[in-house]
Order: sequence, then structure tokens, then C-alpha cells
Amino acid sequence: MEAGTLMPDNAPPVVVTTGEPAGIGPELTLMLAAQGGLPANTVAVGDPAMLRKRAAALGLNVTLVECSPGECPGGDKVLPVWPVALNEPATPGVLNPANADYVLATLALAVDACQKGLAAAMVTAPLHKGVIIEGGHPGFTGHTEWLRDACGVDEVVMMLATDAALHASAPGWLGSGDLRVALVTTHLPLRKVADAITFERVTRISRLLVADLQRQFGIAKPRIAVCGLNPHAGEDGHLGREELDIMIPALDALRAEGVDILGPLPADTLFTPRHLAGVDAVLAMYHDQGLAVLKYAGFGQAANITLGLPLVRTSVDHGTALDLAGKGVADPGSLNVAIALARRLAAQRLSATA
Amino acid sequence: MEAGTLMPDNAPPVVVTTGEPAGIGPELTLMLAAQGGLPANTVAVGDPAMLRKRAAALGLNVTLVECSPGECPGGDKVLPVWPVALNEPATPGVLNPANADYVLATLALAVDACQKGLAAAMVTAPLHKGVIIEGGHPGFTGHTEWLRDACGVDEVVMMLATDAALHASAPGWLGSGDLRVALVTTHLPLRKVADAITFERVTRISRLLVADLQRQFGIAKPRIAVCGLNPHAGEDGHLGREELDIMIPALDALRAEGVDILGPLPADTLFTPRHLAGVDAVLAMYHDQGLAVLKYAGFGQAANITLGLPLVRTSVDHGTALDLAGKGVADPGSLNVAIALARRLAAQRLSATA
Repeated sequence: MEAGTLMPDNAPPVVVTTGEPAGIGPELTLMLAAQGGLPANTVAVGDPAMLRKRAAALGLNVTLVECSPGECPGGDKVLPVWPVALNEPATPGVLNPANADYVLATLALAVDACQKGLAAAMVTAPLHKGVIIEGGHPGFTGHTEWLRDACGVDEVVMMLATDAALHASAPGWLGSGDLRVALVTTHLPLRKVADAITFERVTRISRLLVADLQRQFGIAKPRIAVCGLNPHAGEDGHLGREELDIMIPALDALRAEGVDILGPLPADTLFTPRHLAGVDAVLAMYHDQGLAVLKYAGFGQAANITLGLPLVRTSVDHGTALDLAGKGVADPGSLNVAIALARRLAAQRLSATA
Repeated sequence: MEAGTLMPDNAPPVVVTTGEPAGIGPELTLMLAAQGGLPANTVAVGDPAMLRKRAAALGLNVTLVECSPGECPGGDKVLPVWPVALNEPATPGVLNPANADYVLATLALAVDACQKGLAAAMVTAPLHKGVIIEGGHPGFTGHTEWLRDACGVDEVVMMLATDAALHASAPGWLGSGDLRVALVTTHLPLRKVADAITFERVTRISRLLVADLQRQFGIAKPRIAVCGLNPHAGEDGHLGREELDIMIPALDALRAEGVDILGPLPADTLFTPRHLAGVDAVLAMYHDQGLAVLKYAGFGQAANITLGLPLVRTSVDHGTALDLAGKGVADPGSLNVAIALARRLAAQRLSATA
């Protein structure tokens, strides 16, 4: 499936926020544009002077055209840019807290455009949490949580997914479809995870996951497989009681609502063909339980999707890679997938509301 | 590399304990024997009447010959059996605590044979922890811990590995070698993991891992990559402090001893070619962090190795699969790999002490 064919010609653009200016986000966007790898109707958000300087330093043949939300000039190797000015000049590999507000301003512009119907979806290149915190935002915990608050919703779900079209030959894949892994907890110290697994949280996150697999992915009756919290899913209480006391009652309650949900299953054997057959998404209890296997399976070809937002948002599955920044050697594969997924999800929303 | 060619002709046999009699262990052993898939000089340990009955029920063409440690009759489709009598007859799929002592007796016989030089290595088919506990062993926590105590050592390390010869084309593999994942904690409820990660434990387990990669695998100077405990390896303390307070000092101390050790690294990106290149083993902090990816990568072709024992012990990477038992449909792939690895490790030990 070539995702782009699904987007109506008159749809608003997909916008890419270019992220931390010292990281690889700007050059990944420029590399895709120079390779002709950006779909038509894609706009970058960032500082035009910084982007031009980065393109020139890397010898990337791409013409940047500044424009405003509502405009999107096209053309071969033309990258439209909605401008946001840096606070101070950026050097690849060197973080500068003075530019924290710049990064957040690119996000705010993209959210505003999505909410006004001037963008069909937003795709985020990586930012650096530490430098945003240092730059005067001590409560900042990540893109996902910032978008939740900016959109005024109570809860979002982080899901990573691969693009099936890129993975026809991958081993152990979900049938011939995508591998999707959603998380009940995300950026939480490991020692806080067990207490965060509550009946209320497991049921709430599962419902959000099901709702967005229906709404964003067009899957009428999604089947979810759920990882246990403990090794071997607690092995009947011998290796922890959360499965017996919390998870099994929560999954039973969801089944009583008609949700097609399997588990809790041992996480170490869940990601195998026998258990994944017919499953639309895996729900992991915490970050490394679900994401190590997804990134092993699809690194460079996976993207992050935020469920539960009133807008479509996808992201790369990697960080700012400061050690690679400015060298032109980083792999734009995940950004490519994130843009393709954003287009599929936006087209699904547009067709559902048409 | 065909591992069997490394074993001297006059070496003692590799013994396979057939495990929980209601599970798939007996039939996996019989299936390999009937397929001609068992290397010469392999002996099973279990109840001969149960094994004959299981073979007949599944139509497996294999001749069982009872013998004693020190004897190992050969021949095509002949399976030598060191007999241990069941306490009560076993039915596939139906656990019976009355046979808990039988399962432990098969292990004791194998350990004794290894210690007396009558076996070169032991390979364990799966047992069921819950029924051993119910059968009068409330403190039983698993094969690995039982073997530690039986051998009188203070600590062992659980490592899962794949056989490179079976995986030449797998994606993201360690160069063209094996993927090996060792664990700092094993069968511990998740909420107890963080407190178990101490300076002392991380350094001790790392040293055991390095020593056995040298002794059992013949790798002169192993390189280890270590997963952080927290998501993103704690992200400079923003997502947990164990990396800063415990793990970085522990790895620095190991480096000062000359250990070639990388990390702590984010577990979700460690299992990718960029980070795995040149690495001989990954050290994960807990069960699901390391094993989900290993079993995704190598399910059915991976095996468990216990490091730190005075004998060679490998095991399958799966459980008793009671729902499959007696049907002849379970996959003997992991048992096959476990036997091949046991032979490689035993040959390495024999050559090192020759």
C-alpha cells in the first residue's frame, strides 16, 4: 500500500517539527527533502536560516521556501518552511538551553495549525528533554505529555508501530500486518512502575487503545494482547501478585464490555508468531518491556504514534543523537515511516468524517 | 560449524532430563530421537515406561534401552535411558504434585553423573515450578536456583543464547555470531527489581559472566554491553537515579579491573546493529528487559545456559506447554539448540582441561 494515494488532493499539509536544533532532526528532514523522499504537501517547522545553513554544510540540494500556515508551495526539491526564529544560533552536537523555548514554539505552531484545520497531522523530530528542563521548564517530561496538556485532554497513550509495507519479509511479524506496541506506563523510573499498574489505569488505557485503533486505524474490532507485569506473568502468584489482584480483574471487566483482549501473557514469549497471530496491538506495562523488541524488530523503520489526542501526531522512534548531528550520517528511515503513518492516519480520519 | 565434531569420541554422554512428565519435555526428546536429530552419545533421564507409552501414543519410531550411568548403548533410533521411576502414572496436560520428587530425582541423577565425570553436560527439558512447590518444596524457585544449591555454589547467572549456525540470516544479529543475553535478576517480581540492583550485585554478576564467556565459550577478552535499569538508562537522572548512583560506579570499577564493558545504555535501542557490533553478550537488569527481544529474535532456536556452575548445563527457552502436551505438535527446535550448545560448551571445557 502506498500510503500517499489515500490522502485527498485538497487536504491540508502534514507538518514536521524539526525538533532540537543541535540534534539530527533538522538534517533528517533536509535529507528526505533532498532525496525526493518527502511526499508532496509536507511542510517543515523551524528556523529557516538554521535549516539553510545545515543544508549548505551537508551539501544537500534543497530549496527552502518560507510561507505561512495555509500556504504550501510545491515543486521538486522545494521544502516549504513555516518559520520560527531561534533564540540563539545552534551548533550541531551542542545543546543550548536558550533555545528550549524555540523548540516548544515549533510544537505550539503545529498544534495550532492542526486545531484550525491548516494541517492534517503533525510529525515530530526528536527534542532533548534535559535541555528543555534546563531552559526553564522543570516540569517538562516529553513531547507526548506536552501535547496532552496543549490539547487539553486527560490522558494519551504512547504506541510504537512499524509500517507493514516496509516489512513484508520481517520474521515473526503480525500476520502480514504491522507490529504495534502500546504502553500503560511510559517515562517512569522502573521502581515506580508496579504501583502505577492499577485496575483503573489498565482499563482506561486499554479503552483508549481500542478506540484509536478503531478511529485512527479503521480496525472495526481490534484484538489486543496484554503483557503481564511480572516475569512469566506472575506464574500464578509465585512471581508477583499484580496479575491476580489487578490485571486479570481488569481484563475480565474489559471482556465484559466486549473488548477482544488476551492475557495477561508472559512478555518474553508473547512476541512470537504463535501468540501474535491475529493480534492488532500488544499492550506492554512499561517502556523497556515493549520497546526493546519493537525497536529490535523495526529499528529505523518504526514510528511513535500518540493515541487519544484530538489531532494526528506521529514521531520518530529515536533521540537527538547529538554524536551524529551535523555529519549527515543519521538514518532518516524512522522519520520517513513517521510521515507515511501520519498520512495514513490523517486520511483515515478525513474519510471517517467526510 | 557442526558442534558435534568438536566432542572427542571417548567423551562421556550429554544427558537430557525429560522434565515435567505432564508437559512436552518427554515428547520433544522422543521426537528428536525418532527424527534422528539426537547426536550420538546422548542419554535421556526419566521413567522408561512413561517414555515408551508416550512414544507409542504419538507413533514415534524409537527404541528405548535402559542403562546405567557409565553405559550408553548406541545405534540408529536407539535412545538410551537412565531410569528414574515416576511416583504415579503421568497424563499429558494434567499436573500431579505426587510426581514433584520424581522431577527433582532426574535432576539429582544428572548432577551426580556430571560431578563424577559420567556425563559431559546436562540439558534440562522444562519443569513446572508451581507443581514442584505444591509437591512439598515450598522454597523451590526454579531449575537454575536448584542447581546452584545442588552444586554448592553461591551464585549463578542465567544467560539465553542462540546458535549462530542456525541464524546466519537473522536481522540485527551480533556480527555473524550468537546473540547472548545474561540477567542480573531473574525470577523476581518486578516491584523488587530496583532494590536488587546493587553495586555489589552488578559487579559480581558481570565478573561471573566474563569468566564463563572465557572458560565456557573460549572468548579471550569478552565485550559486554549493559542495559540501564530505567527507561532511556535514566536520562541523566530525570527518569531514575540508579544509573548515576549504582550502575555507572559499578561499571567504572569493572573497567578499572580491565573488563571491556559498555553502558549503561538504553535497553530499547541497545538491541540494534549499531550498538551490538562487536559485543559478545548483553547484560540486562531483569527478565523481560532482556528475554522478550531474545525470544522474538530466536524463538525455537534459543537455549538457556547457566553460568557459574562447576558443570555444563543448558536448557530449553520455553515452558511445559501443558496445552500442547501429548499432541506431538510442539517444536523441538529449542531442545535441539540446547543439546548443540551443551556439546560446544562441554567440548570447550574438555579441550581447556586436556
